[in-house]
Amino acid sequence: MTYCVGLLLEDGLVMLSDTRTNAGVDNISVFGKTYLHEQAGERVLALLTAGNLAVTQAVWNRLQEGVRLDGVATTLAQVPSMFRAAQLVGAAVREVFEADGPGLRAQGIGFDVAILLGGQIGAAAPRLFLVYAAGNFIEATADTPFLQVGEHKYGKPILDRVLNPTTPLADGVTLALISMDSTLRSNLTVGLPIDLTVIRRDALAVALKRRITEDDPYFAFLRQRWSESLREAYQALPRPDWLG
Amino acid sequence: MTYCVGLLLEDGLVMLSDTRTNAGVDNISVFGKTYLHEQAGERVLALLTAGNLAVTQAVWNRLQEGVRLDGVATTLAQVPSMFRAAQLVGAAVREVFEADGPGLRAQGIGFDVAILLGGQIGAAAPRLFLVYAAGNFIEATADTPFLQVGEHKYGKPILDRVLNPTTPLADGVTLALISMDSTLRSNLTVGLPIDLTVIRRDALAVALKRRITEDDPYFAFLRQRWSESLREAYQALPRPDWLG
Repeated sequence: MTYCVGLLLEDGLVMLSDTRTNAGVDNISVFGKTYLHEQAGERVLALLTAGNLAVTQAVWNRLQEGVRLDGVATTLAQVPSMFRAAQLVGAAVREVFEADGPGLRAQGIGFDVAILLGGQIGAAAPRLFLVYAAGNFIEATADTPFLQVGEHKYGKPILDRVLNPTTPLADGVTLALISMDSTLRSNLTVGLPIDLTVIRRDALAVALKRRITEDDPYFAFLRQRWSESLREAYQALPRPDWLG
Repeated sequence: MTYCVGLLLEDGLVMLSDTRTNAGVDNISVFGKTYLHEQAGERVLALLTAGNLAVTQAVWNRLQEGVRLDGVATTLAQVPSMFRAAQLVGAAVREVFEADGPGLRAQGIGFDVAILLGGQIGAAAPRLFLVYAAGNFIEATADTPFLQVGEHKYGKPILDRVLNPTTPLADGVTLALISMDSTLRSNLTVGLPIDLTVIRRDALAVALKRRITEDDPYFAFLRQRWSESLREAYQALPRPDWLG
């Protein structure tokens, strides 16, 4: 499996993905799931992918070579807006489904893909989308300023409780890392290293691209301190007086 | 859906279930999912059920009327050990599958059931089992002293981090309630009220059976305080210095 999360904040985007892929639990590999398209000063887009690796790699390759959008072969360098970028990613997903769906079905394998697309093009505001296997998509809003794909449940409670659009970028990074930590601890199919991308609003460039390994001092400290904090918070809670 | 969790502690058992059932999100009802069998001084057993309500109610009814175990109609009052009790629950699940499986399949409905069985019979130690739809089962051990059925992912990280067999019963109650709270907040298909059962080791009786509603002062305080604690813990964490 996979865990990817994207945060749409007033100050920009925080995008975090793990790198574990598995064909059965006895065949585990490291593959990056974050793809960046950056034209400094003009546009910056990040794709975070979950699902069948052959499908997600095919989607990215087609996006490089051009996907037919309204009959015209188009790349991420050419779309005029994030909405059109989401349509293009959806079109790429549908192209891969047309090409590989029957072959997968013949082997009893589902067409499994979900993609987070975040970024900014020109002067328009940053946007964050989740593109489904059907090629359609939803968009994060101020009410729900984060989107997840893959093993989303373990890491959702902390986001539900704390995140809002005014959360500063550095706080968003910490929150995304806590959310990832909860997932890493409880689910073996999500694994280190993890890839962090930060896009500041109106910078039209990647502010930070960092691969975080087991040895990363900040992440290691965060994991340990968060565990301790949870234990302390739980210890500090009163116990029920009706238990006797 | 459902969330049920059972903790097997040195001091006894903590069993907690929600009460929400749904046939689609537009048809939500309250049904208890905790069933108790108590013969004070001799045995006490608790079943917590997840899955198709018609299946789980049929399992409980068959356990009352007697299920064939090694050719003899047997009830929970008659089994000599918790292992035999788990076999009996598994046999009841298989009887329901034989009776209703074809009818369900004809309607395209899966045979969906999972049951936590905790309890103590006589002088033997308390035990905790998870019985699957196939009628087979696993047992909690000191390495993993809790079992869950239903929507288990949201509430698992806190148990993974904190629980161990020496956790006192009152602490176990608090932990189970935190685990349930995380699930309630992030998943609408799990809902209040919740049913808490506590079985003290060697008491051979139910120590506490409590239905916890939205108005329960302890649970309301716990939910609020836990949320505050998480926010405070997150606020107290340092932010990454490599973000600039």
